[in-house]
Amino acid sequence: MTIFDTLDILGTIAFAISGALSAMNKKFDLFGIFIISFVTAIGGGTLRDMLIGNTPVSWMQNPFNIYIISTVACFSIVFRNKLYYLKKSLFLFDTIGLGVFTIIGIEYGIQANLAPMISIALGTMTGCFGGVIRDVLCNEIPIIFRKEIYATASILGGVCFTVLFNLNMPLNSIYISTTLLIILIRLLVVKYQVSLPKFSIQDQKN
Amino acid sequence: MTIFDTLDILGTIAFAISGALSAMNKKFDLFGIFIISFVTAIGGGTLRDMLIGNTPVSWMQNPFNIYIISTVACFSIVFRNKLYYLKKSLFLFDTIGLGVFTIIGIEYGIQANLAPMISIALGTMTGCFGGVIRDVLCNEIPIIFRKEIYATASILGGVCFTVLFNLNMPLNSIYISTTLLIILIRLLVVKYQVSLPKFSIQDQKN
Amino acid sequence: MTIFDTLDILGTIAFAISGALSAMNKKFDLFGIFIISFVTAIGGGTLRDMLIGNTPVSWMQNPFNIYIISTVACFSIVFRNKLYYLKKSLFLFDTIGLGVFTIIGIEYGIQANLAPMISIALGTMTGCFGGVIRDVLCNEIPIIFRKEIYATASILGGVCFTVLFNLNMPLNSIYISTTLLIILIRLLVVKYQVSLPKFSIQDQKN
Repeated sequence: MTIFDTLDILGTIAFAISGALSAMNKKFDLFGIFIISFVTAIGGGTLRDMLIGNTPVSWMQNPFNIYIISTVACFSIVFRNKLYYLKKSLFLFDTIGLGVFTIIGIEYGIQANLAPMISIALGTMTGCFGGVIRDVLCNEIPIIFRKEIYATASILGGVCFTVLFNLNMPLNSIYISTTLLIILIRLLVVKYQVSLPKFSIQDQKN
Repeated sequence: MTIFDTLDILGTIAFAISGALSAMNKKFDLFGIFIISFVTAIGGGTLRDMLIGNTPVSWMQNPFNIYIISTVACFSIVFRNKLYYLKKSLFLFDTIGLGVFTIIGIEYGIQANLAPMISIALGTMTGCFGGVIRDVLCNEIPIIFRKEIYATASILGGVCFTVLFNLNMPLNSIYISTTLLIILIRLLVVKYQVSLPKFSIQDQKN
Repeated sequence: MTIFDTLDILGTIAFAISGALSAMNKKFDLFGIFIISFVTAIGGGTLRDMLIGNTPVSWMQNPFNIYIISTVACFSIVFRNKLYYLKKSLFLFDTIGLGVFTIIGIEYGIQANLAPMISIALGTMTGCFGGVIRDVLCNEIPIIFRKEIYATASILGGVCFTVLFNLNMPLNSIYISTTLLIILIRLLVVKYQVSLPKFSIQDQKN
């Protein structure tokens, strides 16, 4: 098992927990909790695979992911009150998932010979789309568009990845350092409550 | 025409009616009714085809589906008040669609050499996704996450399918018996108002 | 650069502006504005490519689109109040995008040897889906299902395209004339406030 695979499993677990909690917040039933857990965890990778034509998509090639996600969903249900109490550690999980999946997505893009800019976009989508689809299915405006510098951390990590990659750094070091960078950026951003500027349109009536 | 094709057409008609009624409930215009009818009927199969890389997706390989759906949408508009009155028969149609599309999805999964667990997941998505996208486009929380043992019927039927398949039962009997099983489970579940448990998160403030 | 490419760029710009304005209306942050701009502009083409199996999807094969959309999003932010004031010109842009992308989608369908009816459906989706996903991500019911003869213009233009194509008219003339036809239909429809009939279901309780 490579470092890549380990990161992938960590990210999957992190996102599966975040999905299960969202679904319980919305009072979904048992199946709803499983499915939101599932789409949050595999949504980003599935979009990535469909965009680059890597079919059957990754989670179909190995049932291992389904077992992990089911186990995590059960675990989240049993420990739901403890997990909620540990909101901060959940935020941490979500952030790990973001970092890991972004880097995995960029790696796929590079392997598919896409331009660096495109690979970064692919990585950002891989990292963010699971959360977007979770929010769409829960009938909410995706949180990443409004509240936090979420995708921005992802993009900065991606830029860093392509720079290091072009400097021919060893791959494993790149994976770990850029994943940590994304996680670090997001943690700092939330700690110091940095947020991106918003632009609203002035009312023309007066 | 095989039994497989006949089931496919039945399911398409059932889902197209269900989509048209949802759109009329939301007061969509003529085009909106057609398109919701269309995505409800072909959504599940389209997701299935994109996930396994079966492109151009099925409905593109034969215009026959578009003709059926258009006809059904017209029919639903003309007889909208009667159909609504017949809510129970609609529920029946929706249930037939679920059973049929689930089994078709599993069959595709097996043909693509996917693991049994993955084939069942693919079948469940094929059966449920049309309704999910219908509800997302109507800006509602997908009903299958909250109200009824819907996907669960689908999953149970799928398990049964793979068991019978491994026992080398004749294919046509498997198709029909498992489709009927899914339909039966859902009918019983609704009749006796069985529902899955929900888990909500306790308020930590007190 | 062919006329086809020029039309594509025009449509992309038009849809990117429309996406940026929607996002600012919803008070999304900087990243949210970029991403909604992006998905509105590339959403239709991405769905089209995934449906016909043209992967990696178009925007991945050339970073040019990302540069255009980013530039347009910046421009939209800077001139947001002027753009809003110019609502009518925006409507024009959106209409241009619809016309252009519909015709491009049909062209792809014909190249993939799809039936004429299917190519028209593919073109309509290419033209409309960017706006649909924009509205879904903004948590609104897609406007095309309710308010205007939008997709209908697209379908009429598509029918016209296939007729002219079968008459062996020169391609460039077909592209331009049918794109203009779609734009014209939509402009007239809005000017004279034509709308499609709606069908609602009578209350059965009285």
